Amino acid sequence: MAESMTGLKRSHRCTEVSKTNIGETVTVMGWVQKSRNKGGIIFVDLRDRSGLLQIIFEESDCGAEYFKKAEKLRSEFVIAVVGKVTERAGSVNENLATGDIEVRATELRILSEAETPPFPIEEDSKTKEDLRLKYRYLDLRRPDIQKNLMLRSKVANITRQFLIEEGFLEIETPMLTKSTPEGARDYLVPSRVHPGNFYALPQSPQLFKQLLMCSGYDRYFQIARCFRDEDLRADRQPEFTQIDMELSFVDVDDVIDVNERLLKKLFKEVLDIDVALPIQRMTWQEAMDRFGSDKPDLRFGMELVDVTETVKDCEFVVFKGAIENGGSVRGINAKGQGAMPRKKIDALVSFAKDYGAKGLAYLAVNEDGTYKSSFAKFMKEEELKALVEKMDGESGDLLLFAADKNKVVYDVLGALRVHLAEQLELLDKNEYKFLWVTEFPLLEYSEEQGRYMAMHHPFTMPMEEDIPLIDTEPGKVRAKAYDIVLNGTELGGGSVRIFQNHVQEKMFEALGFTKEQAYDRFGFLLNAFKYGVPPHAGLAYGLDRLVMLMAKEDSIRDVIAFPKVKDASCLMTDAPNIVDDIQLDELMIEIKKKSEE
Amino acid sequence: MAESMTGLKRSHRCTEVSKTNIGETVTVMGWVQKSRNKGGIIFVDLRDRSGLLQIIFEESDCGAEYFKKAEKLRSEFVIAVVGKVTERAGSVNENLATGDIEVRATELRILSEAETPPFPIEEDSKTKEDLRLKYRYLDLRRPDIQKNLMLRSKVANITRQFLIEEGFLEIETPMLTKSTPEGARDYLVPSRVHPGNFYALPQSPQLFKQLLMCSGYDRYFQIARCFRDEDLRADRQPEFTQIDMELSFVDVDDVIDVNERLLKKLFKEVLDIDVALPIQRMTWQEAMDRFGSDKPDLRFGMELVDVTETVKDCEFVVFKGAIENGGSVRGINAKGQGAMPRKKIDALVSFAKDYGAKGLAYLAVNEDGTYKSSFAKFMKEEELKALVEKMDGESGDLLLFAADKNKVVYDVLGALRVHLAEQLELLDKNEYKFLWVTEFPLLEYSEEQGRYMAMHHPFTMPMEEDIPLIDTEPGKVRAKAYDIVLNGTELGGGSVRIFQNHVQEKMFEALGFTKEQAYDRFGFLLNAFKYGVPPHAGLAYGLDRLVMLMAKEDSIRDVIAFPKVKDASCLMTDAPNIVDDIQLDELMIEIKKKSEE
Repeated sequence: MAESMTGLKRSHRCTEVSKTNIGETVTVMGWVQKSRNKGGIIFVDLRDRSGLLQIIFEESDCGAEYFKKAEKLRSEFVIAVVGKVTERAGSVNENLATGDIEVRATELRILSEAETPPFPIEEDSKTKEDLRLKYRYLDLRRPDIQKNLMLRSKVANITRQFLIEEGFLEIETPMLTKSTPEGARDYLVPSRVHPGNFYALPQSPQLFKQLLMCSGYDRYFQIARCFRDEDLRADRQPEFTQIDMELSFVDVDDVIDVNERLLKKLFKEVLDIDVALPIQRMTWQEAMDRFGSDKPDLRFGMELVDVTETVKDCEFVVFKGAIENGGSVRGINAKGQGAMPRKKIDALVSFAKDYGAKGLAYLAVNEDGTYKSSFAKFMKEEELKALVEKMDGESGDLLLFAADKNKVVYDVLGALRVHLAEQLELLDKNEYKFLWVTEFPLLEYSEEQGRYMAMHHPFTMPMEEDIPLIDTEPGKVRAKAYDIVLNGTELGGGSVRIFQNHVQEKMFEALGFTKEQAYDRFGFLLNAFKYGVPPHAGLAYGLDRLVMLMAKEDSIRDVIAFPKVKDASCLMTDAPNIVDDIQLDELMIEIKKKSEE
Repeated sequence: MAESMTGLKRSHRCTEVSKTNIGETVTVMGWVQKSRNKGGIIFVDLRDRSGLLQIIFEESDCGAEYFKKAEKLRSEFVIAVVGKVTERAGSVNENLATGDIEVRATELRILSEAETPPFPIEEDSKTKEDLRLKYRYLDLRRPDIQKNLMLRSKVANITRQFLIEEGFLEIETPMLTKSTPEGARDYLVPSRVHPGNFYALPQSPQLFKQLLMCSGYDRYFQIARCFRDEDLRADRQPEFTQIDMELSFVDVDDVIDVNERLLKKLFKEVLDIDVALPIQRMTWQEAMDRFGSDKPDLRFGMELVDVTETVKDCEFVVFKGAIENGGSVRGINAKGQGAMPRKKIDALVSFAKDYGAKGLAYLAVNEDGTYKSSFAKFMKEEELKALVEKMDGESGDLLLFAADKNKVVYDVLGALRVHLAEQLELLDKNEYKFLWVTEFPLLEYSEEQGRYMAMHHPFTMPMEEDIPLIDTEPGKVRAKAYDIVLNGTELGGGSVRIFQNHVQEKMFEALGFTKEQAYDRFGFLLNAFKYGVPPHAGLAYGLDRLVMLMAKEDSIRDVIAFPKVKDASCLMTDAPNIVDDIQLDELMIEIKKKSEE
């Protein structure tokens, strides 16, 4: 039976009690982490979000009635304790903030009893994630997840403070908005008042923040929920949170400047880590050439080497064919991995194939200077020597090569490089390597759509010197777009926006839109642009990813209070679920029957 | 043709330039508010979110080329100007922050030309709201709306700072969640992965914040978007924003204390208004009896007077009948309104009828002491005298009476009281009268449902002394629920929550739920409660309303960047709209044809 807390008032959280309170009477409340009776003394570890505090029940202090009540305590009971703070009688527990004191109880109330939880509440839980997510309210009691969510709260708060001091206004944009094509799949919301019509949940506040710039708000930010109905991966959720910002009368350097100072402040205040400014910048082309990735992890080397020139005359058909088809041959040098067993190398080949490679050529430089290789037999001695030299190959190294179209070569070696770094434990979660990747391509050709698509979005400004190329070589136009990358993860990205009608029109032409189509899709923004639009630019961070990296976690689920799983469902609430027919009737929609498929 | 801003960097916002900059060269950017050529000198009022700055173009300063360009300037052009700050040559403009200076331009770039806007960009716009909302991006340029949104940003920020300092954690709860009955109508989101299943957008984070308390987060807050698919009124939007909080190990007074300090801080820092603490408290019953409203406006008197006893023996059938039916007769005294013309009184009667009254009895005390009355003829002289006395009626007063069931009497007189105050201009927007209304009824009988409904929600704690009444007289049970009221508007409300199983079960019984039904609806919360739940309580403010009152506006649309209109549509984006069939196919839903209705 639950007792009321009437008449009691908590005086301290658990770890707010310290040696300075010795001799005082305190009132503490929380969960029983552990309770044990040792020779007529009951020891209770009391837990709240601040940590643990040891409570002692001894009949001589608290009397028979309270002692008897204390005997009933089990894990996860919620209790209120009045007691006196004393120096710890037993040995000091160095692992506890409150390890040098204890509270000798004089009163106890059981505010809530508890059944035995389906799994223990403990750090680094070994319990299967699905079970933990079903009982997320219990899983959220774990000190490590609590720490993550406290860190998240702190990151959001420091970010807001910083941006407000920098003159940004926090402005809320609609969640019930218009379905916009040219992005990912929208979540739709049927309208009851307008049957047959739908709102869409925003994929980002992009159009609204640009409108706010047109309206003169100058600097906008929002920590905004965004929605994408895509198939999930480890670092994706159907709903996610962006730190979203937009600035007027700025160019690339202004956006980078304010964001570098934001990152510096965040990492200093949250993790006590000094981010050296300016953060390194690299063009997209350099990132691809050196790391095979537009979000390179700079915590280790193993850079890509272009050996196309070196092997262009050899007889190895894989190399030769790739080059003849306009592709390239590139390699990475896994230093000291020359003795890798064949089975592990085969696994690398298979990994490469998953990324689209037809195969993976390898060459191990043996300790005696001879080679073990999948392709040496097709090449002349001096060709091999030149290749090894080009790769900086030394005794004991393992050289891995991909030969294909550039895109495939980048994808394969970029992924392989990270994969090897994980295997070789080169990735230190305590090291934070930031990088700006700049000058992204403006347009990407989509085989599927048979036309060019905007790599960021259709409002991204091309680099001024590349504007003429839009008509002639659209694929070569570089954009004033930038991503901020941390340890191989894209933390955020943004761009300078097109603010001139004639550039915007060129862009829509390149995307294959008629004027009518463009207005149909983005009419209100294009109209807004008629009435005086300032140069503007912005950036958005994935808050979930940022916090994940700061918390040194591998999944964003560990930094979201109530995440969804891979099939976009919530194991705790069972959302999505079936609704009453009357709800669908009001919305004038029906569920399509399977047979109609 | 738009020029680029390359090579220029804004040095000041418009009103950041001041007398201290005289002699300096500044670079300013913004919108042309007004441009006029007076005797070979071009005067431009440049506008940004900070305000206005006067720019002077004279050929002798800027040269022929720039002067020629300046001649082309029209309202809403976006320009960049480099120039020298000088003391204002003409007379000082006291209405402007920068009225004592001007900038003599030496360089001009036209960053963006502008068509003539469909309505002038000016404060207190007289343009029809629908047109302004269609061109919201232009409407948002108005300085008064910009001030409102800046105020909103400030309110949100101060609130967050305060709560974080008070130990609250900001935790985000899901937007794609489970449809919960017992509330308003949900917005639904069809699931693609689980055809036939739906998410619901949250009406509030209620269940999640209670779970967070179960999980030990102790103090939670969130400035959260909420959704209700209801028909709109002036102060309602399909999506709205709550300042939402929940606290563990607290009772009513703790919640009130922290919120009073929050309100005090907000009003001091934003409006420089001192809110005297403690804020007045009033039980729901007293609020109804004295003001006929659970959100009384305390800026004026005109309180309700219960005259049931006084008139109980009279022969006026309207009074008699109401009393015999268990109702009451109550009146308000419109001081000094005795000479109100008959036509206006008739309008009041008609107003009363809109609120459910069968009529409205009135009695004017003439200056000569005689009465003009709709019912005097049915009452004896001494009965009338006693009635006037009970009402504190003096010469020149107008007494208005309603006789009906209590609920109707409260509704009618409560509304009439506010209506009269508006007519008599008793409501001063600069005066802020706060009030806590406490001890709300726990349950309300719904004729429509044929059962009791939770007045707040099914987790609201009854007052301890009233718990036994749940079985016997459910309608009499008072709840540990409280609303914070400001000038007749409910700013927010909350309650202490039930944390004991046996009380919760009683509550569900009173609501007519079987255990199975209760688990079906609220299963995950009830399950969570099995594993140790702390006493907890919370409160949520309507941020839109709070900001509306602080900005002295009449509609929340004036404090929301992109609001919707009465039919829940957005006039700017045309949301909701029709979507592609392929989108519906993927969701396995179809639009019901009219004929099937």
